[in-house]
Amino acid sequence: MQTSPFLGELIGTLVLILLGDGVVANVLLRHTKGEGAGWIVITTGWAFAVTIGIFVAKAFGSIDAHLNPAVTVAFAVATGDFSNVSTYIPAQFIGAFLGAIMVWLHYLPHWATTSDAGLKLGVFATGPAMRTTSGNFISEVIGTLVLILGVAGISSRNIGTLAVGFAPYMVGILVWSIGLSLGGTTGYAINPARDLGPRLAHAILPIPGKGPSDWSYAWLPVLAPIVGGILGGLFIRWYAL
Amino acid sequence: MQTSPFLGELIGTLVLILLGDGVVANVLLRHTKGEGAGWIVITTGWAFAVTIGIFVAKAFGSIDAHLNPAVTVAFAVATGDFSNVSTYIPAQFIGAFLGAIMVWLHYLPHWATTSDAGLKLGVFATGPAMRTTSGNFISEVIGTLVLILGVAGISSRNIGTLAVGFAPYMVGILVWSIGLSLGGTTGYAINPARDLGPRLAHAILPIPGKGPSDWSYAWLPVLAPIVGGILGGLFIRWYAL
Amino acid sequence: MQTSPFLGELIGTLVLILLGDGVVANVLLRHTKGEGAGWIVITTGWAFAVTIGIFVAKAFGSIDAHLNPAVTVAFAVATGDFSNVSTYIPAQFIGAFLGAIMVWLHYLPHWATTSDAGLKLGVFATGPAMRTTSGNFISEVIGTLVLILGVAGISSRNIGTLAVGFAPYMVGILVWSIGLSLGGTTGYAINPARDLGPRLAHAILPIPGKGPSDWSYAWLPVLAPIVGGILGGLFIRWYAL
Amino acid sequence: MQTSPFLGELIGTLVLILLGDGVVANVLLRHTKGEGAGWIVITTGWAFAVTIGIFVAKAFGSIDAHLNPAVTVAFAVATGDFSNVSTYIPAQFIGAFLGAIMVWLHYLPHWATTSDAGLKLGVFATGPAMRTTSGNFISEVIGTLVLILGVAGISSRNIGTLAVGFAPYMVGILVWSIGLSLGGTTGYAINPARDLGPRLAHAILPIPGKGPSDWSYAWLPVLAPIVGGILGGLFIRWYAL
Repeated sequence: MQTSPFLGELIGTLVLILLGDGVVANVLLRHTKGEGAGWIVITTGWAFAVTIGIFVAKAFGSIDAHLNPAVTVAFAVATGDFSNVSTYIPAQFIGAFLGAIMVWLHYLPHWATTSDAGLKLGVFATGPAMRTTSGNFISEVIGTLVLILGVAGISSRNIGTLAVGFAPYMVGILVWSIGLSLGGTTGYAINPARDLGPRLAHAILPIPGKGPSDWSYAWLPVLAPIVGGILGGLFIRWYAL
Repeated sequence: MQTSPFLGELIGTLVLILLGDGVVANVLLRHTKGEGAGWIVITTGWAFAVTIGIFVAKAFGSIDAHLNPAVTVAFAVATGDFSNVSTYIPAQFIGAFLGAIMVWLHYLPHWATTSDAGLKLGVFATGPAMRTTSGNFISEVIGTLVLILGVAGISSRNIGTLAVGFAPYMVGILVWSIGLSLGGTTGYAINPARDLGPRLAHAILPIPGKGPSDWSYAWLPVLAPIVGGILGGLFIRWYAL
Repeated sequence: MQTSPFLGELIGTLVLILLGDGVVANVLLRHTKGEGAGWIVITTGWAFAVTIGIFVAKAFGSIDAHLNPAVTVAFAVATGDFSNVSTYIPAQFIGAFLGAIMVWLHYLPHWATTSDAGLKLGVFATGPAMRTTSGNFISEVIGTLVLILGVAGISSRNIGTLAVGFAPYMVGILVWSIGLSLGGTTGYAINPARDLGPRLAHAILPIPGKGPSDWSYAWLPVLAPIVGGILGGLFIRWYAL
Repeated sequence: MQTSPFLGELIGTLVLILLGDGVVANVLLRHTKGEGAGWIVITTGWAFAVTIGIFVAKAFGSIDAHLNPAVTVAFAVATGDFSNVSTYIPAQFIGAFLGAIMVWLHYLPHWATTSDAGLKLGVFATGPAMRTTSGNFISEVIGTLVLILGVAGISSRNIGTLAVGFAPYMVGILVWSIGLSLGGTTGYAINPARDLGPRLAHAILPIPGKGPSDWSYAWLPVLAPIVGGILGGLFIRWYAL
């Protein structure tokens, strides 16, 4: 069988969400080994979910390994080359949806024992610590902008070419940093596929005792990261980072 | 004396289990410095147990440094070359058994002061957070599959050759990620030798106040990782990762 | 548009403070996702704030990526070349001030819900655990001296040239180490811009229920790091590190 | 002024102890920012104390950067070349003693406010979680043996030459691993200078409300690491690691 950029983005994003939503399941669901383990575990888990997702995406044929529509949009804006957009973004959403299904499967016995429906949604989709549309929107724009500028910094021609394999690790460190420092408000979606794909899975899957999927908020972690991605892409373009 | 792949796998796996089961002993046993230190300590400890085990295995003559029968099976399936299997796997089980004996020796004064027999078994062997055969089996298959795909990603020819020494670190990060995100259900054995070798040591060693070694569960963290390893090996073969 | 050392120092320090003060906001403010997450989260957040800030600074044109007047002074003393001082230091202060404004914006809904004015100041500026001028001054000198010697070590010609991108990571590890080990007394300003820029932002911004900006302490985390930087620079010069 | 191996070992060990004993002070003493922050903070702090100590030691002229008499003895046994022993070991003890004095100075206001004399000693010297001579001795031998085999693995000719600067980081990871996994019994001295130098400083310094320096235990964290070092050195020699 053939590897391809489509397959790479799909399987890489699947692994990203399996590991990323997985750590949230471990911390939020009842009777897990990591129940209540806190913010250091969640942010470390998401950081290395990104690193491992990137390695897997590259192996399956996506050398770019964006795993995130906001990153794909940013680099399309930066370079003026939109040819990847229609391949990468569907793959990212499909991968995120499938990854969320695997999280559901992996933590199968724990859904029934967790009574709080909000925690169960929290495994799949982000929700703001305090709900204010403008504040939450700004947070997601800022978080995504830091993501794009960080990626631009890590791969900047001003810096030179990183050792093979070091860039995926550094992007993981970048996401660790964003989670620790900027994740406190909205839970750092900073990736439309990461939020919408699993939210859809939450809506469809037969999860015992689940509540609504909070669709009234769902547009924000899609749109705000796209805005942040466009802004970041413009910076890269203007300054030739 | 001669180094050899057999010796490398044996001593590497010994160090893996000494450090891996060691961190569990530190967190679970009474009156240790790390008592109750939680999931971040356990997962960080296992991550670097893998990294250090790999370095030591390579130094003692195993350039592959699998330390895990599921990894050995995966790469045999992937390459069609089963010649290492009969050397590596016995060495891994012997090393894991001896490593568990060293953990017992290292934490010698703490066995008598820990009254809970379940915690004492927990130092040696994994046990599920919620016992359901199918759910636990699926968890161990998924965890091992991510391990194999992650290792394949880190060493993929699509990526290029990592700097010397960087791969052992990245495999540690991979296991950190699996522990944080997927370890919440069964405690991520993802390695038949890691579970069966120390369980046997638990059964044999003169541990004061120990309970049964939970042999009814013992087949699962052996068989499920092998299934995950075969699946992962097939992916590597099919897609030429 | 043009990148430049001035722009690099400004945007790099902005990102440093956005991520650095951001993690403090996450831990100290009420109703955040990371509320009360403790010292491991704060020190990890500051560590990678430095790493990401350095990558961004380099991309925007500052190959030195000091982000810290004490570092700029140290290397001016070490080399006898003061030509960068008048460019870098204003950029660092402006960047720190703007970064603090972005933290305020990012955590916008959380200022009103946090009643303790001291915690709100703590997001922006350092304050000593126990207030004693000489003790606090010594702490900041020692912390900054370790920073300078550590940077000198990481970039020493005795060691050789680190792989591209590895130095920003190592400087992050250095700041992680200083925070964990020496941050317990004064909160490790070790950077005049990091403290004074955000303190000024705290004084000016319309933060609901804020208290005074503790100006009587403000001179110490400016002057002591400069003293530490000069001492460190002299060591580099004397020993040709 | 001249750098030299003596100076490098001295200043490197000074920085090691300043950062290593510093993190213990931060966690154990009263009214610090890191009070009660736990085992993850202590082990992370000691890990990077080692990494930064090595960088500084190299910059000041010790390319070996042992910082530990047990390591110096191990490599003397391994190579049969004892010429460095009489230079390195005195430098390591002097550096550890001076580093402990700097910790005392750095945390100056916190000694009087901490009433528990045992915690104050704990900043300087290790003490066992459970006192049993044979058990504690075995623990320190095993911990040091893993240290030596780990260092041998990281620098093994079977592996090749690590990228510049990566080895100090990996040795830090090794010490992180030993602390997390094997530190639970005796607090992982694994270094005669790390224990005896600061213990002497504790005995001499004017620390308010200090208790005895526990000299009856002091021989163990000196002798056991030397035994572990000799054993490790013999392994390196026998197997030509």
